Amino acid sequence: MKFARLGPVGSESPVVESGGTWFDISSITTDIDGAFLSSSGVADVRAALDAGTLTPLAGADELRIGAPIARPSAVICIGMNYAAHAAESGSLPPEIPIMFMKTPNTVVGPNDSVEIPRGSTKTDWEVELGVVIGTRASYLDSPEDAAGHIAGFVTANDVSERTFQLEVSGGQWSKGKCAPGFNPTGPWLVTPDEVNAADVRLTSFVNGEPRQDSSTADLIFSVEYIIWHLSQYLALEPGDLVLTGTPEGVALSGRFPYLADGDVVEVEIEGLGRQRQVFTAHADDRAATKE
Amino acid sequence: MKFARLGPVGSESPVVESGGTWFDISSITTDIDGAFLSSSGVADVRAALDAGTLTPLAGADELRIGAPIARPSAVICIGMNYAAHAAESGSLPPEIPIMFMKTPNTVVGPNDSVEIPRGSTKTDWEVELGVVIGTRASYLDSPEDAAGHIAGFVTANDVSERTFQLEVSGGQWSKGKCAPGFNPTGPWLVTPDEVNAADVRLTSFVNGEPRQDSSTADLIFSVEYIIWHLSQYLALEPGDLVLTGTPEGVALSGRFPYLADGDVVEVEIEGLGRQRQVFTAHADDRAATKE
Repeated sequence: MKFARLGPVGSESPVVESGGTWFDISSITTDIDGAFLSSSGVADVRAALDAGTLTPLAGADELRIGAPIARPSAVICIGMNYAAHAAESGSLPPEIPIMFMKTPNTVVGPNDSVEIPRGSTKTDWEVELGVVIGTRASYLDSPEDAAGHIAGFVTANDVSERTFQLEVSGGQWSKGKCAPGFNPTGPWLVTPDEVNAADVRLTSFVNGEPRQDSSTADLIFSVEYIIWHLSQYLALEPGDLVLTGTPEGVALSGRFPYLADGDVVEVEIEGLGRQRQVFTAHADDRAATKE
Repeated sequence: MKFARLGPVGSESPVVESGGTWFDISSITTDIDGAFLSSSGVADVRAALDAGTLTPLAGADELRIGAPIARPSAVICIGMNYAAHAAESGSLPPEIPIMFMKTPNTVVGPNDSVEIPRGSTKTDWEVELGVVIGTRASYLDSPEDAAGHIAGFVTANDVSERTFQLEVSGGQWSKGKCAPGFNPTGPWLVTPDEVNAADVRLTSFVNGEPRQDSSTADLIFSVEYIIWHLSQYLALEPGDLVLTGTPEGVALSGRFPYLADGDVVEVEIEGLGRQRQVFTAHADDRAATKE
């Protein structure tokens, strides 16, 4: 199944797709959040779809697409998880997953515009497979146990500011990962039965020109390994978002310019949907340019 | 004013202190959260106290003390913010604030027992002044503007596992900062009018023996500077918790042993209250020791 949240910021309606139609599931849950994902919610929606008791959401095609999950309790990220990206970043492939975090308030809709932070000269894109946690995961016995804790998968753009992340950070990356709007998520939350997370194609484009084009088959640490590994160090909560790392082809490589006012970024994961963001300069920077 | 949350985990009642009595404020707010702190809530409580319309919470002295704030949307931490602690950690004092994060689900009551993570050999304490955000802070003009965004201050213990943080982390610290229970907070949220955050004494003890004993006067970056600085890189939300760094005297220095099963940690900040945690081994580690 594909879940989504459609409507204005803060007033999104939860929906499920069937046969190309978006059905309103607000009679079953108020939101696509941890409580819904960790309960019988998904099964209840499937049963309601089968029984034909859901109503299409009126005007769904005209509505803004929100992030397909409510604001998570945490956004956990894995760094340098594709060997070619580690190389373009000047690093060796890691021998153990590298974990950092984004603030949950970075999560926005897949097509919302993104403001380039004030003073930024190195705003960069990163297409990533996102994993949404279904049930609490703590001290899992093995990577094989991870699947039972996964609610589904999403397309994500781990937007990054490289000066903030690497040059004024003392080496801790989060400072360049948390500006408002820095985590476009969605359009859809797709349940695991419809995704082969071990081999899906990830692509990104800037102003229509190709940038990244890889497959999760190139992940150094698999989705299941990551969830198992993280669970040894923290408790993953229902509704949490885990970003699994980005492949080569970002501006940090030196092969492409960083983002500027008006640039259009598109990122797509096979089966999980495509995002499109217009990046806009902060008003102060636009004023300074005009002076 | 001093706010607290008293009662069983997940069922805490919000209270305010006056004349040594805890008054129930659940008629004004369901919780001490961002919505309460960013609205007229605090002023409403003060008015109700002045009008004498609040009722003491029955049996308050017998109740568990929860964290004095609801689970925040983010816990932002500043590293190496005391010169002597940077030195004992083998680092130079930073020239710019170093930011990392803990997951919000680490926040627990000040006297809750803390489980030493499975396999841990380097669990450490860190007394820290915690700042609770009152209103959204983004792109503040100057450190002087920070005060208007601060709801109050708390005692915090930034519990850390040094192997996880430094040896199996690829250099990103969060992996050693997020185990369940790793952020005892409280007992009280104290409003800024009652705290001179620029010079309060911070102390910690293990099994009654002194460990840390410093003052926030030794902070490299002040509370106001930190809030202003962070606001250039992310949006701080009402109810968020900012930890300002720990002074010298932790086990990482090599001068003291790391925590073991049954150790009692106490941390205290002048005017903000004292915490007491019993640290307990994970059941698997206890079983392994007995074999």
